[in-house]
Amino acid sequence: MSDAPSIPMSATLAADEALDRRRRAGEQVLPMAGGEIGLPVLPELRRRLAAAADANAYGPVPGSQALRASAAGYWERRGLATDPGLVVAGPGSKPLLFALLLAVGGDVVVPVPSWVSYAAQARLVGARPVPVPIAAGQGGVPDPERLRAAVTAARAAGRDPRCVVVTLPDNPTGTVASPGTVRRLAALARELDLVIVSDEIYCDLVYDTSVPAESPARHAPERTVVTTGLTKNLAVGGWRTGVARLPDSGIGRALHGRLVSVASQIWSSPPAPVQAAAAYAFGEPPEVTERVAASRRLHEIVVRAVAGRLTAAGARVAPVRATCYLYPDFGPLRDHLARAHGVHGGEDLVRFLGERHGVGVLPAGAFGELGDPLRIRVATSRLYGEDDERRTAALTAPDPLELPWIRRYLEQFDTALADLTGARVLRA
Amino acid sequence: MSDAPSIPMSATLAADEALDRRRRAGEQVLPMAGGEIGLPVLPELRRRLAAAADANAYGPVPGSQALRASAAGYWERRGLATDPGLVVAGPGSKPLLFALLLAVGGDVVVPVPSWVSYAAQARLVGARPVPVPIAAGQGGVPDPERLRAAVTAARAAGRDPRCVVVTLPDNPTGTVASPGTVRRLAALARELDLVIVSDEIYCDLVYDTSVPAESPARHAPERTVVTTGLTKNLAVGGWRTGVARLPDSGIGRALHGRLVSVASQIWSSPPAPVQAAAAYAFGEPPEVTERVAASRRLHEIVVRAVAGRLTAAGARVAPVRATCYLYPDFGPLRDHLARAHGVHGGEDLVRFLGERHGVGVLPAGAFGELGDPLRIRVATSRLYGEDDERRTAALTAPDPLELPWIRRYLEQFDTALADLTGARVLRA
Repeated sequence: MSDAPSIPMSATLAADEALDRRRRAGEQVLPMAGGEIGLPVLPELRRRLAAAADANAYGPVPGSQALRASAAGYWERRGLATDPGLVVAGPGSKPLLFALLLAVGGDVVVPVPSWVSYAAQARLVGARPVPVPIAAGQGGVPDPERLRAAVTAARAAGRDPRCVVVTLPDNPTGTVASPGTVRRLAALARELDLVIVSDEIYCDLVYDTSVPAESPARHAPERTVVTTGLTKNLAVGGWRTGVARLPDSGIGRALHGRLVSVASQIWSSPPAPVQAAAAYAFGEPPEVTERVAASRRLHEIVVRAVAGRLTAAGARVAPVRATCYLYPDFGPLRDHLARAHGVHGGEDLVRFLGERHGVGVLPAGAFGELGDPLRIRVATSRLYGEDDERRTAALTAPDPLELPWIRRYLEQFDTALADLTGARVLRA
Repeated sequence: MSDAPSIPMSATLAADEALDRRRRAGEQVLPMAGGEIGLPVLPELRRRLAAAADANAYGPVPGSQALRASAAGYWERRGLATDPGLVVAGPGSKPLLFALLLAVGGDVVVPVPSWVSYAAQARLVGARPVPVPIAAGQGGVPDPERLRAAVTAARAAGRDPRCVVVTLPDNPTGTVASPGTVRRLAALARELDLVIVSDEIYCDLVYDTSVPAESPARHAPERTVVTTGLTKNLAVGGWRTGVARLPDSGIGRALHGRLVSVASQIWSSPPAPVQAAAAYAFGEPPEVTERVAASRRLHEIVVRAVAGRLTAAGARVAPVRATCYLYPDFGPLRDHLARAHGVHGGEDLVRFLGERHGVGVLPAGAFGELGDPLRIRVATSRLYGEDDERRTAALTAPDPLELPWIRRYLEQFDTALADLTGARVLRA
């Protein structure tokens, strides 16, 4: 019997919707809660979707041959040889992650902090998340030593952890776990017989492309499932497309069969016109790689500008290496925030910034942190403008920070931070 | 802890894929297993999708305001006043049904026979289906008297049935439960405190439009969720779009909140370009209603032609009133089939027709029938031709049965039936 007494709404989507309502009501809001990428669709990608509007058949459950072959090539160019027969496409990497949890079964180890939906999805399928903290600066990967202890304790208590989810690069911290951490995680997963589900949707958004994130699929190839999508690279979250790469092993082939069965019962197949566009995009023709490079540059410039402001205001921020996320810790300002504003935790921070300044952010608690720490996640991917014209200008501007609409957003952020910390407003 | 030791692949999708492989290998196959509608996309619908190719934002989890308002209008024109705020759109009605089972919780009453995925979805969420047979000719609705006994027994055994799924009109039988049966079902659901999930995806494919299927939402409005989509009406199964109408009641509003939360954690939002096209389609401009009428006519002509052949061959077939499905019972030919071919049940029938004649059908067991009865489900919706040109011709032909490709399909069916039953091949 299933029972889901408490199903939380996705915190990112809920916060975005609430903020959009305020914006429509005429408020000047600063949307830094959800990680939607506020950039236009690449014109050729748009044309591919439009040209495939006559594609109305379901096609194969795991996606078309063309899409799977294209995704396999994408991974091969990143050093992961891939059998298209072990690729499964779905309507987003989120449903693929959900279906993977069902297909693996058992309980799920999740890093703390981690993306809002891993633990919620685990609970939806009747599993219990086994939370394991990350080590500082090693976002997305449970601290390997604590992982061993947590899994051993869970098993001793009669629970059945069978997989560990990792995020490389990481949401919410914007960091990338080191190759050493990934290697230790992979070795431990093998020792503990855990499947690794490696969410690599941000893998092309590491700023220094000479130091890519290392996939655990290199070190535990027999047990690592890799997922990605076009949501972050090409800003088509609303199209709903993702792909999973299953291990070429006994574990992988068994899991593939179960995943395809689950997919057949939940969503049938990914949207056919989107598949055609995705097959093109994963082929990475020059205009696609150029667009990804341009957006990566824009993300880096804006996220660093915001990181600098947070640091200047006295918050602790890990050096951001990827994504569009920051995870500032306001602990150093604890006394001032309590005294001046009655702000004691992340929830208070969110309320203060939202209600007084229209700045939408998420509390650390949304990422699985207990005890409501004085931290928030700040997403910078919607500061590029409110329409396609401005967003296109942001992609190509020599200095995006000088664009008036981005400057206004940053000034709003400055004002909010200054009010929060009691500092003078910094004008760059 | 979740555990799903046996997850069956969707029987319809699996059979379709197997048949497609044989077709690509050069065999002349007759695809009557899955219910995909083999018709082209309506040109204006295709244009709407293409024009929305720049829609890349997630938008609201339950779908855009425009889509929900349009779906509400669709239901209002069918006598069901609908609050757009209680409409939830998803990437297909299949994921909506899955999410509804999670949102309601508990065990699920399913009719026998019924669509392949209800029981499979229930098992995926850790629920146990409570199977209840239909009364003859009342497909899609559990026989109300047996429903009471089954729910009472299940509760006495400590189980927790909380909802009943019905299909109006019905897949696999092609029948439509009578208003009397629907009324009794609604009264019993109220008495037993069950939510009714009414899958009405075939509601516009009742041949005699003066006698529409009656929705239980008329009789138990406070507890009936209605789902539908564009897959059957407009042949866009591969686009993945569906809508659910939740009751305007305390039950409905609570369920709506849970459904949206589940949706936010599994699929985020329906594909945005598809939403734009769906908003147009649910508005039912003249070209849409004309297309639905033309395809309904075509379905009726072809399904009746196949029904006539089955009856002439000695199978029992309930009078088909809707959909593109037949559910013939070969019981009257039991002795002959056993003696002549060693065919004893639906599985044997499927093997015989598939291996000897390239005719793909599904066994009754795929629809939840126990004991492998001597029945199959026959879908006629892919007999209209293999390309858009032929399919368009089929839609407008004065006598579609005279089109050479449809005639060839029917001859292949005749040959298979004649071989099976030992009769002469009937040439119309």
